[in-house]
Amino acid sequence: MSTPKLKFAIIGGSVDSFMGPVHRIAATLDGQAELVAGSFSRNKEKNTVTAAAWHVPEEHSYTDYRELLRREADTLDYVVIATPNNTHVEIATAAIEAGLAVSSDKPVGISSEEGRALKGVIEQYRAVYMLTHNYTGYPMVKEARALRESGNLGTIHRVVVEMPQGWVQGLIAATGAEPALWRMDPAIVGPSLITADVGTHAIHMAEYVTGLRATSLAADLSRLLSTSGLENDGNILVRFDNGASGIVTVSQFATGDRNPFRLKVYGTKLGLEWVQETPEWLVLKEPSGNERRLYRGHSPDAVSTRWSRIPIGHPEGYLEAFANLYAEFHRAVRDKNEGRVGTYDFPDVDDGIRGMEFVEAVLKSDAPENTDTWIDLAEDRT
Amino acid sequence: MSTPKLKFAIIGGSVDSFMGPVHRIAATLDGQAELVAGSFSRNKEKNTVTAAAWHVPEEHSYTDYRELLRREADTLDYVVIATPNNTHVEIATAAIEAGLAVSSDKPVGISSEEGRALKGVIEQYRAVYMLTHNYTGYPMVKEARALRESGNLGTIHRVVVEMPQGWVQGLIAATGAEPALWRMDPAIVGPSLITADVGTHAIHMAEYVTGLRATSLAADLSRLLSTSGLENDGNILVRFDNGASGIVTVSQFATGDRNPFRLKVYGTKLGLEWVQETPEWLVLKEPSGNERRLYRGHSPDAVSTRWSRIPIGHPEGYLEAFANLYAEFHRAVRDKNEGRVGTYDFPDVDDGIRGMEFVEAVLKSDAPENTDTWIDLAEDRT
Amino acid sequence: MSTPKLKFAIIGGSVDSFMGPVHRIAATLDGQAELVAGSFSRNKEKNTVTAAAWHVPEEHSYTDYRELLRREADTLDYVVIATPNNTHVEIATAAIEAGLAVSSDKPVGISSEEGRALKGVIEQYRAVYMLTHNYTGYPMVKEARALRESGNLGTIHRVVVEMPQGWVQGLIAATGAEPALWRMDPAIVGPSLITADVGTHAIHMAEYVTGLRATSLAADLSRLLSTSGLENDGNILVRFDNGASGIVTVSQFATGDRNPFRLKVYGTKLGLEWVQETPEWLVLKEPSGNERRLYRGHSPDAVSTRWSRIPIGHPEGYLEAFANLYAEFHRAVRDKNEGRVGTYDFPDVDDGIRGMEFVEAVLKSDAPENTDTWIDLAEDRT
Amino acid sequence: MSTPKLKFAIIGGSVDSFMGPVHRIAATLDGQAELVAGSFSRNKEKNTVTAAAWHVPEEHSYTDYRELLRREADTLDYVVIATPNNTHVEIATAAIEAGLAVSSDKPVGISSEEGRALKGVIEQYRAVYMLTHNYTGYPMVKEARALRESGNLGTIHRVVVEMPQGWVQGLIAATGAEPALWRMDPAIVGPSLITADVGTHAIHMAEYVTGLRATSLAADLSRLLSTSGLENDGNILVRFDNGASGIVTVSQFATGDRNPFRLKVYGTKLGLEWVQETPEWLVLKEPSGNERRLYRGHSPDAVSTRWSRIPIGHPEGYLEAFANLYAEFHRAVRDKNEGRVGTYDFPDVDDGIRGMEFVEAVLKSDAPENTDTWIDLAEDRT
Repeated sequence: MSTPKLKFAIIGGSVDSFMGPVHRIAATLDGQAELVAGSFSRNKEKNTVTAAAWHVPEEHSYTDYRELLRREADTLDYVVIATPNNTHVEIATAAIEAGLAVSSDKPVGISSEEGRALKGVIEQYRAVYMLTHNYTGYPMVKEARALRESGNLGTIHRVVVEMPQGWVQGLIAATGAEPALWRMDPAIVGPSLITADVGTHAIHMAEYVTGLRATSLAADLSRLLSTSGLENDGNILVRFDNGASGIVTVSQFATGDRNPFRLKVYGTKLGLEWVQETPEWLVLKEPSGNERRLYRGHSPDAVSTRWSRIPIGHPEGYLEAFANLYAEFHRAVRDKNEGRVGTYDFPDVDDGIRGMEFVEAVLKSDAPENTDTWIDLAEDRT
Repeated sequence: MSTPKLKFAIIGGSVDSFMGPVHRIAATLDGQAELVAGSFSRNKEKNTVTAAAWHVPEEHSYTDYRELLRREADTLDYVVIATPNNTHVEIATAAIEAGLAVSSDKPVGISSEEGRALKGVIEQYRAVYMLTHNYTGYPMVKEARALRESGNLGTIHRVVVEMPQGWVQGLIAATGAEPALWRMDPAIVGPSLITADVGTHAIHMAEYVTGLRATSLAADLSRLLSTSGLENDGNILVRFDNGASGIVTVSQFATGDRNPFRLKVYGTKLGLEWVQETPEWLVLKEPSGNERRLYRGHSPDAVSTRWSRIPIGHPEGYLEAFANLYAEFHRAVRDKNEGRVGTYDFPDVDDGIRGMEFVEAVLKSDAPENTDTWIDLAEDRT
Repeated sequence: MSTPKLKFAIIGGSVDSFMGPVHRIAATLDGQAELVAGSFSRNKEKNTVTAAAWHVPEEHSYTDYRELLRREADTLDYVVIATPNNTHVEIATAAIEAGLAVSSDKPVGISSEEGRALKGVIEQYRAVYMLTHNYTGYPMVKEARALRESGNLGTIHRVVVEMPQGWVQGLIAATGAEPALWRMDPAIVGPSLITADVGTHAIHMAEYVTGLRATSLAADLSRLLSTSGLENDGNILVRFDNGASGIVTVSQFATGDRNPFRLKVYGTKLGLEWVQETPEWLVLKEPSGNERRLYRGHSPDAVSTRWSRIPIGHPEGYLEAFANLYAEFHRAVRDKNEGRVGTYDFPDVDDGIRGMEFVEAVLKSDAPENTDTWIDLAEDRT
Repeated sequence: MSTPKLKFAIIGGSVDSFMGPVHRIAATLDGQAELVAGSFSRNKEKNTVTAAAWHVPEEHSYTDYRELLRREADTLDYVVIATPNNTHVEIATAAIEAGLAVSSDKPVGISSEEGRALKGVIEQYRAVYMLTHNYTGYPMVKEARALRESGNLGTIHRVVVEMPQGWVQGLIAATGAEPALWRMDPAIVGPSLITADVGTHAIHMAEYVTGLRATSLAADLSRLLSTSGLENDGNILVRFDNGASGIVTVSQFATGDRNPFRLKVYGTKLGLEWVQETPEWLVLKEPSGNERRLYRGHSPDAVSTRWSRIPIGHPEGYLEAFANLYAEFHRAVRDKNEGRVGTYDFPDVDDGIRGMEFVEAVLKSDAPENTDTWIDLAEDRT
């Protein structure tokens, strides 16, 4: 028997933004949810254009998200938050208080303190809250984690996470000027640019796949051609709780690098490598130097097959990975709606707090007044 | 102002099939259309399960597509045909006669004669008809064609299209037996298996990108481990209308090959290579031996950017390429609905007839009673 | 106890040629042989310059190879023949009659008849004769053959060999004119250009790795921008003695292709792929779609380790592969000198005759007066 | 007119070692030098076996290198030093004092102090001395440097050098025990294992290609499964004299990594990437995200063509790169012999001292008693 789709609204994320369309497509890809309302922009025209483009009736489109919550909360199951960082916690809190589930763009907010406050609200309302660290949605990342969980890698002694992007360098090369983006405005994104923006992805991925916890770090940040004063490039040494060493590199000035998010994990039994630009394969490096490459969907019972929509040989990508987060989120929302309790594989507020702690330790390590480059990461995960 | 989404039904393509989910996702990816009815299977249970999975209310779900057309034609804009080959033309004809647009899985039918009959119906009703040769929907394939159109390749003298798949070999290796699939039943797919199934993609891609027309061919087909008697592997020499030589290879027994659809075009100025497994890049080979690799979305005005949903560095794949066909199709359907006339970049019934003529020539060339291996391809494109 | 190195002379192959330096380096790479004399060119200056460059004393350098044989035969162990095709058999015959072993550039000559005549001489003198189909010297090609021999591939049903080169196209693009090379002169190379030059490599590789024998073929040749009238591009359908199908493609007009000699073999158990541009790895494609990549030198007892000089991770290439042929040849020459009998892994006159038969069948298949495109290959290997 | 080859002896480097055969092949590859004597091992049998294998007459083979120098100095042009680290300076000094040129394995010795002492000797004797940081001999590394020198990269702001090797991990996985190699014995290699062994290559490569000088560093070293107490894995943050940031990573426990020496340089105009496992191509990353890939030998006047032996499309590798160092070294030795003065492109004693300073700074940074992780590198290059 057919049940209704889940109903959601998007706050922020107009049709010309990066993340708005991503959330819209990912949330609806499996046909389990429908976009019925939105507060896509405080700018009236942008809001209207977006509503029209996405076939949201005018009467369900709002320039003020509070009005949206007031008038639509009863029909909605959840909201998607795709606004700038400094509003994430405020909006999430309001939505939860309105009784809704929340899918929020990362980072959780602009400080770990904010994150902890939000956690309090979530616990109080027993709300469903997802933070879209989407890279862990890739089928072969799931397969990598499963391989580690079953002990195939042995003891992990080395971890490398690279997120070299060159897009800001590219814009400067093309236009001769630093782009004026809210992502670069400390009043909006808080004290960290690249570490908050993509460093949080990197550390989340490292911990998700390895099961280890970073315990200390030493960071070397750069502020290239930047008027904001925020860091846009960084190399970070990391130590994990089992003694493994690691490196995290992030950049917006890795000239010509598109976004080859790369994860390398070295264990005593196997090395493992995954690269976002070829997301469908997972390289397993044997001690002999031979490799085994696993492909998404290689067998009916492969972990990656469970997270796939189409058979091997037909490339899936970023949107499908993102949709995998939403698949889990939708399951959680339905369970909550129907009084079931379950466990779900999506990033949550703890991951958000963790990311902020990482950011804060990185900034502290790099601060000129700091005499001890190595900084301990908080260990208190409730 | 918000307009309603286009409304469509799917005929065939239940939730456990390959192509049903593909059409459902691709057609709705951009939020321009909604699935409101279906005749997903003649099997009642399959039909019910699919309707539930995709939130199609029971009252809009039918085991008989003719009933669907009778009862839903007024509210529908188009139907998607995802049934086996031998029913494509019958259903398309009925849908068109019911006043609907049609998006049909390839091949057009099981003979060029069928295709020409359908063409008559389409012309009579001035219907919008799309045949989903989806590989031409990839952004970098569009970019390849644009490069050729602007003369960057020079005179083309050599074309290679490879569609080596190993999945049937894989199933046999895993289970010890040939799978019992309708795709292998001549009563359902007609006289050709692999040539009709993927050879039609290959020749369509070759002609789409190069702008050339194949004029003759010589085929060497194999029937490996097959009880159906249908060909499942083939190597085909091709000559094009400008004298260029070509090869088309297709197989279901290319052990371990996932589906690395590969196109190589050699011109006097540049060589060009595109491989589906890395669909986001297009390799341009310079006479010096150096290469230039273009990436999807490399600049705001790139051809590939127009066919993209997310920025460079965030992989798109098969579903997004398929959705590009639907984007054009939706545009055509809206234009038709609203009395506009336009030109659209999607494969149509002529491509379908062309594919069948290719299949027929291939079979004729390979036939043991044939003494002249080289066969001319019909040239009559109206 | 130290023994003397083998002593050899080079006939043809001056310092500015392609193959002269290759033979010189490959023959001496392992320190088992020394170049002591030469007839590098009939051009006195070229001959002198080459002798000086390679530290061959003037008194051992000759413009007439017959004089070299007369005066040096007693001190030499073997000669290297690096002259144009039409002199190979004549020089080889003379050298053998002078009591020397011969390492000859391919092809064996300009016809299978020539090859058979040479074979008679070799048998009469029980001479050591090597034909340098060097691609089979690559360690991972040896490993591929060993995998096949031990049954790991299962029954082979499909073979692809590609030798797409773009260098002539490159020269034309750079200079605006067809280069005037002896390789393109039918008076020197005989009736075939690309098939004799690289097609013989391709068929040798296919048969060497698969252990199959080609039994029939159908060729489609092109003569692009050519004044010689010789074919410089070809696609050839092949059938092997176990019924397997195959394709051989050769070209000098594969714009921008450097020389990515590619071999693909598909068996019922595994697919296998080797590409010269990444010669250190061998891709094994499993029926599931997963891959296993073996690297040169991956374990102490790997086949490739026996044919390697340096450990895994330090790239070897073309010259080292070529030197592997010489390593076997030197072993054979020493055995012959010292009255031992052995078996050796290098191409011989039978491979040369085989290559010519292939060439002749290809030309016959493509001839306009030929009505039956499929041509049988001679099967008589003594 | 033919001149004699240069004559050399090898000290250390028996036939079963890694580097002995490498030096022998590289030094003789171009036919410009011949191995006439050796002190391959202090072990009499190893020495004899090696001499026999390489056709060095018994009377020119010595177990004591001092005797070799005494008896052979007059006929030799140079010696190759392929002994363990702690003897490099002693032997080099003795050879120079015997009037010979020296080609020494890296590192220069076991301390910067040793290096400076050797430099004094070299200057006193105006000796030709080469330190074989061979990676800079690769044609495409030369081409990378030339691109930088001509300003094509713009201002460099980011440098990454990776030398992840997994071979010790591989040996442990295969045998269950740490291998007993002199490379791991602090009595022989001094206070540093991996930094001295390959870290010196890494920093040399970085400075050679970028033209920058590292000015400070912060290191995080690991001592994995090691009984020696020496570091065998490290991540090192680096700052360069123009403010650019960098990372150097070295490991013997990068499970399954063969030796994919990778250099990434990011400038304001271009990014550049070279990987030893595909040494024939150089990737240039444009700000748009498109790439240009240059191949060894792509045009007659390319920098890489000058450092090549065979045309594009025929892979060269490690030995040929190593031979490029020897080509320059031979030129220097002949010039010295014949009273000419020139400039040469090979690493020298200053590079050796530089490497030791890098090692010493890395060890200091990582030392537990060190409170300031960031260490300045000496700037005094005379």
